Formats: sequence, structure tokens, C-alpha cells
Amino acid sequence: MTNAELLEKLFEGNPRAVARAITKVENGAESASDIMKEVFLKTGNATVIGITGAPGAGKSSLVDKLAMFYKNRGEKIGIIAVDPSSPFSGGAILGDRIRMSALGVDKNVFIRSMATRGNLGGLSRSTVDAVAILDAAGFNKIIVETVGVGQDEVEIVKTADVSIVVLVPGMGDDIQAIKAGIMEIGDVFVINKADREGVLRTEKELEALLTLAMRPDFWNPPIIKTIATENKGIEELDVAITSYNEFQKSGKGSLERRSQIAKWRLLELVRERLLSDLMSKNGTAEIFDKLALEIAEKKTNPYSAVEEILK
Amino acid sequence: MTNAELLEKLFEGNPRAVARAITKVENGAESASDIMKEVFLKTGNATVIGITGAPGAGKSSLVDKLAMFYKNRGEKIGIIAVDPSSPFSGGAILGDRIRMSALGVDKNVFIRSMATRGNLGGLSRSTVDAVAILDAAGFNKIIVETVGVGQDEVEIVKTADVSIVVLVPGMGDDIQAIKAGIMEIGDVFVINKADREGVLRTEKELEALLTLAMRPDFWNPPIIKTIATENKGIEELDVAITSYNEFQKSGKGSLERRSQIAKWRLLELVRERLLSDLMSKNGTAEIFDKLALEIAEKKTNPYSAVEEILK
Repeated sequence: MTNAELLEKLFEGNPRAVARAITKVENGAESASDIMKEVFLKTGNATVIGITGAPGAGKSSLVDKLAMFYKNRGEKIGIIAVDPSSPFSGGAILGDRIRMSALGVDKNVFIRSMATRGNLGGLSRSTVDAVAILDAAGFNKIIVETVGVGQDEVEIVKTADVSIVVLVPGMGDDIQAIKAGIMEIGDVFVINKADREGVLRTEKELEALLTLAMRPDFWNPPIIKTIATENKGIEELDVAITSYNEFQKSGKGSLERRSQIAKWRLLELVRERLLSDLMSKNGTAEIFDKLALEIAEKKTNPYSAVEEILK
Repeated sequence: MTNAELLEKLFEGNPRAVARAITKVENGAESASDIMKEVFLKTGNATVIGITGAPGAGKSSLVDKLAMFYKNRGEKIGIIAVDPSSPFSGGAILGDRIRMSALGVDKNVFIRSMATRGNLGGLSRSTVDAVAILDAAGFNKIIVETVGVGQDEVEIVKTADVSIVVLVPGMGDDIQAIKAGIMEIGDVFVINKADREGVLRTEKELEALLTLAMRPDFWNPPIIKTIATENKGIEELDVAITSYNEFQKSGKGSLERRSQIAKWRLLELVRERLLSDLMSKNGTAEIFDKLALEIAEKKTNPYSAVEEILK
């Protein structure tokens, strides 16, 4: 299939074309850059929802129920699950299968796990590109769910129009542990499993934290209580998502924010390109291997080795 | 202070010199590269222990108790806590303060949180460098604790001599959720809070998972039950750590492993250097800002912008 054919099908919303384009982007294929230039022109219509939170908070169930909610309203939904990559085997594929059965095979629901970040980096970048592809393919809502709460995940969620942080009652110290990293990125907070003990305490703690942190845009993040497994609180969540989305779109901060995201994305791309240009030079891989062995044998050190490589 | 003076104090184990060297490395100071070349020559004596696991697993208590155990045995311990960086304020400093009171101010215990990864990347690299600094300063045990379970954290823990994955009973689905990412990096598994309900089930599930995954080195990761808050199981954990450390040091895989770590570190350094060389050119920052705004306004796209920058 030529790029033009792929793009034509992609813009029609063909799931195979979408999948193929994402794979190209993920693999850093030569043609990815040409495709993305065209894709980019068609973006900007979807609402991108980022969801993060500690493992065990029930993010997957919540995402599934939210997707179902939108699907029943006649919308097209794309789900991108960003999994912590397995350094050896290439990471979690399990998400896809489980989900497929719950949401059914439906041309209006596209689900994709993204995992491995290769040596050249770029998980964040390929996720952002996948979002753009789904956007250009006419998906109305794109949900980006991260499994981990590490730096990459935070950066990925930051690029969403609306970022949701999911907590569960009784996390106690965990709120402390995660607050530094992800509290500040939440436009909407969800306390899931809200039938559990300790929901009130978690809510109070969260409110206290949010009071301390005045946002530059003066938005006051709502706290929504859900029981995803019982489909409770999903409508309220949708209302909160819509409110924030309208708020941020109308605000003057909007262009500035998009410009910051663009800058971050540009840095990612440049970093990747610089390294891949270097690696594609003849013999670079061999030099890397040789120097790595020398470092391991203490014949040289990484800093001197870098200077040798860049020469 | 000149570099030579700093290095002299550092090699004596002076905590201020250690702290200052880590700060230089973190900030990517010009002199960091020269310092690290010297530091690297003195490394290789410490045992580096990486600890990861989901938030709420009690990693911090475990690290504190393990550090106390080593301290009472007369060893010098360095602790590096890698926190998910806050994208706005620069992240978690809270760890240090809490710990200081528990472990006491002691010249044999050095604690440092590392958080922000700047635009130029390098959290993983600066963590690895901080470990090398502590090693060169004569610390016997260096514990690297990560708060998140994202990709950066996995990569950081991979560089340890012994990697510990901490679980808690009753995680249920969480074992599923995190297994792809971190199960494979565990040389030793800890089930903390082992007085909680469900410890047997978690142990069985973990055993089943470990049976499935045959390691290339045929090591069979032990599962240690601890109650960190009551100081229970810490000795057993030390035994497990020592066993694996001796195993991997004697194995033929050792040089290969160190060489792989060296390669990864080299890639990180090269990536960082390439980008910082580009950014340090006159006017690059302005071009980035201009292009980012144009992308936000849809006047161009990131891929064309990258080509413009690299020209």
C-alpha cells in the first residue's frame, strides 16, 4: 500500500489503516514522517482524555465504562493504553485481549497498547503521534491510559486536553507518595471504588491538597466519585470532563498550552532524530559495542567514550 | 572549590562534597564530565541495590529498615530516592525530611532525592552518576529506590547489582498490571506487610508467575516476606540480596551485563550531549519557541519543524 492509499483509508476511519499507521510510527519507519505531516493537517477535532493513577486504582475498568458510555451515545472512541515496558520481552499485550471481550469488536472502538520504547527513545512521541492518527481518522474521543506513574506517563498525560487522576479510598500514604508527581496534572480527580471504606477521608485529604495548590488558570478541579465496576458515576465524570474541556478551550491559556506541548514534542522528535542520524552512520553500532565493553572492563569511562563517539 | 579539591574530599567520603558533586551532575554542569571521569576510576566496590514496586507497597519503610540494618553492622549506606518528577514545581522533596528523622543525622548514611528531569532528559543518567559518586566516596551499600513504576524507573533499577521488587498481599489485579513491566527485573521479590490477609495467595500467584518465566541465567528469585514497620524479615532479605549478588558476580553473565548497562548509559549520555550541543547554538531556543507557536497555530507541523531545525 502506498502512503497515499494508506492516508486515504485512514481519513475514512478504516481501523486497519489506523493500526498500520500507528505501527509505522512506533517502529520509526522512514515513511512515518511523511504520513504524519499529512495526518497533522487533519487533527484538532477530537477530545483527548488522559487517565493516570497508581496501579490497582481501577483505571482500566473506568476507561472501559467511559468508552462504553461514549459508544452508546454514538461516538467513535480510540483507547491507547501505555504500559510500562518490559525491558526483556517488550511488554504488556494483555490489556488488548481482556478489553476486546468487554467492549466487543466494534468498528467505533479502537484499542491499542503501546509499550516498548526502543534504544532510541520515543514512547512519548509515538503515543502523541498515535493520538494524532486517531484524531485524523475521525475518532471523537481519544482516551490515553497509562499503567505506570513514572515520568514518561506524566509527560504523556500532560498532552491530553483533559487529564484525569484516579485514586482509591484508603490510599493513605500513597496520596503523599504520588502527589508530587501527578497531583498537579489532574484537571479532574476520580475516587474510584467509592463503596470502599475511607472514601470520605480520601476526599477530605484530596480537597485539602487541592486547596493548597492554586492553579495558574484558577480552575478548581472537581472530585468525582465512581464505582466503575457497577457503572456508577460515569455520567458525572463525563460532565466534569466536558466542563474542563470547554473551560480550557475558551481560556487564553489555550494557545500557550498547545504551544508548550508542541515545544515538548519538538524536543522529543529532535532528540530522536539526532540520535538516529548518528546511529545510522556506518560503524556507529560497532563503536558503541566496543566502547561499552571497554567501560565494563574499566579500560575507559562513559564520559571519555562519549567524546570519542562524537568526534 | 576547584574540581581537584572537590574530588579529594569526595574520595574521603565527605558528605558535602558528595552532595555537591551530585548537584553538578544533576544540573549538567560543565565540570560534571571532568569530575565523573575521575570518579569512575574509583568505582566498583559498592553493592548497588535497586528497589521498586507500586506506590503503597511500603518501599520507603523497607529501605529505611534495610539501611538501619547495614548501619548497625558498621557499613556506610547511600540512599537515592528517584521520585516521579512534578512537571510544574520540580517534584518531591518530602522524602528527605521524613527519612532524616527516622535514620538520624549520621555521617554513615547519605540520603538524596532525585527528581526533575529537565528538557534535556537525563534523570536516569544522573541517577547512575550519583550511584557512581557514592561508590567512589566509599559507601558500601547504595540503595536506589524508585517511587514510580514507569519506564525510567525500570531502566534505573536495571542498573543495580541486585534488583528487588516489592509487592503487598491482596494486590490481585495489580500483579497482572505490573507484571509486564517489573516482574522480569526482580532478582529478589519481597512481599511486604506480610501480616495482611491474602499473603498466601499473593505468594502462590507470584510463584506461578516466576515458574513461567525462566531466566536466561537460571537464577530462581527468592520470595521474602517482610513486615518492614516491625523490622521483620530484614535479615532474610539481606541473605537473599547477598546470595544473588555473589551469584551474579561469579557468573559468566557478569561482564556481558555490565557491558549492556554501559551501552545504555552511553546512549543516554550521547543523546543528552547531542541535544545540548544543538541547544547551545545561538538562537536555537528562539527557533524552538517560534516553531512551537506555529505548530500550535497549525501553520506548520512538528515533522516539518524538525527538518527546519536540523537544517
